[in-house]
Amino acid sequence: MEEIDFKNKKVLIVGLGLMGSAYAASFRNIGFETIYALDRNNEVLKKAESEKLIDKGYQNASDILPSCDLVVVCLYLHDALDFIKKNMNNFKSNSVITDIVGLKRKMVENLDGILRDDVDFIPGHPMAGREKNKEGFTSAKIFEGKNYILTPTDKNKPENLDMMRSLISKMGFGRLIETDPDTHDEKIAFTSQLCHIIAASMVDISEDSKVTQFEGGSFQDMTRIAMINSDMWAELFIANKDKLVDTLDEFTESISYFRKCIEDENFDHIKSRFDFIGKKREEMGK
Amino acid sequence: MEEIDFKNKKVLIVGLGLMGSAYAASFRNIGFETIYALDRNNEVLKKAESEKLIDKGYQNASDILPSCDLVVVCLYLHDALDFIKKNMNNFKSNSVITDIVGLKRKMVENLDGILRDDVDFIPGHPMAGREKNKEGFTSAKIFEGKNYILTPTDKNKPENLDMMRSLISKMGFGRLIETDPDTHDEKIAFTSQLCHIIAASMVDISEDSKVTQFEGGSFQDMTRIAMINSDMWAELFIANKDKLVDTLDEFTESISYFRKCIEDENFDHIKSRFDFIGKKREEMGK
Repeated sequence: MEEIDFKNKKVLIVGLGLMGSAYAASFRNIGFETIYALDRNNEVLKKAESEKLIDKGYQNASDILPSCDLVVVCLYLHDALDFIKKNMNNFKSNSVITDIVGLKRKMVENLDGILRDDVDFIPGHPMAGREKNKEGFTSAKIFEGKNYILTPTDKNKPENLDMMRSLISKMGFGRLIETDPDTHDEKIAFTSQLCHIIAASMVDISEDSKVTQFEGGSFQDMTRIAMINSDMWAELFIANKDKLVDTLDEFTESISYFRKCIEDENFDHIKSRFDFIGKKREEMGK
Repeated sequence: MEEIDFKNKKVLIVGLGLMGSAYAASFRNIGFETIYALDRNNEVLKKAESEKLIDKGYQNASDILPSCDLVVVCLYLHDALDFIKKNMNNFKSNSVITDIVGLKRKMVENLDGILRDDVDFIPGHPMAGREKNKEGFTSAKIFEGKNYILTPTDKNKPENLDMMRSLISKMGFGRLIETDPDTHDEKIAFTSQLCHIIAASMVDISEDSKVTQFEGGSFQDMTRIAMINSDMWAELFIANKDKLVDTLDEFTESISYFRKCIEDENFDHIKSRFDFIGKKREEMGK
């Protein structure tokens, strides 16, 4: 693959939150010379400018969007859709738009027929983040070794896809998967959304705030992600409800199987299911 | 607390498996001069002798039990009970017996009325281990910073309890909790047994052996403990079935609440429950 000149690409990050600021930091590391950000919070923009995280901050999309080659939309699902739809006439010709939304069918379906022919929207999902918000900007380190999923459409230009692949690799992600939006959403229901609901339910049923005194590590690992951004996740759960409800049903069915075996004191069934599952998990690897 | 002379105590470890070998290594670090082990596998004993993990290995309890001051029974629940019952006449007068079984009601109830007045059984549960077995002996490091739960009975002598507390601290455990067997078993149903069943059910319902490509870390954390010792855990689940079935029911009820909210697209209910749970988890600390 030809070396891509990121230096002279003007990039705009839309939304300078947890993910947006990590993108900015990462782009700075890679060597982008012009990093702009759009955010409704002017204080955040000023702080980012003063820390040299970005070169200039904007509050109005129309002031900067027409001059940007790459636009990374770091907003929640519906905000991301609204932003792209509302600003369809502001994008620079031949620019590339990408997003970070954790569901891909809604993004692709809702923009189908709306996208201009001369802008290329490449839907993406960097599987990175942090379970808890804190003050200040995020480091590019959150991307290191993580999975990045792209769900390209048949309209994406090969050279723009290559640019995204190169960028993702330079950002430090460990693995790039390319799949269709439906497969993405189905897998995410399981590997991500189910995990968050399980963690929440575990904390939900705990009556003892000192219960961690009675744990060997598993409880910590499993409930770490119970502290989440409730606005973002509630939106994602609902947007993926068909797949997520099925996944929750399969999961509770499996739990019910164990419950029945335990109630019946069926040692052999518990043992053989755990033996089978242990092998299965081992084969999954990392 | 007076410094306790561990050096001259003769200690016997019953069962030189994952936990037993870590106990031996830890006792060696502390400075016990005489560490014996009992195991049905002579090769394991010879290997432990050659590696100086123990001073001498035995296959018959009656050959060594009468001369030991401290006996640590590192066997599964029913094996531990059988061992103590069967050897009741072999224990040295004024010796201390302790165990590592992950359930305490069964241990205490089954030995009540059977224990000799001149031996002191102090039931314990070191909340340490490893999700997977591997070759060789275990290091004492598995205990570092972990929780240890003691469920003393009213028959335990204060000086023996002090000895156990001192020992647990010297072994490197981070926190010692003392409670009654019923409370222990109730908490364990939640912090440990529920976690293992959830992890197993998650792997159970996965149809894709490459699903880890689609994860951001949560899935790994949450299914790590799906690879377990099925014999030991099946026994523990059944022995704690009253508490565990209740816990599983509460858990699936909470999952059902989220399922219903998602199906109904009730954003506000999902958000407010997650906000509540996030705060609750934060207050729990580590």
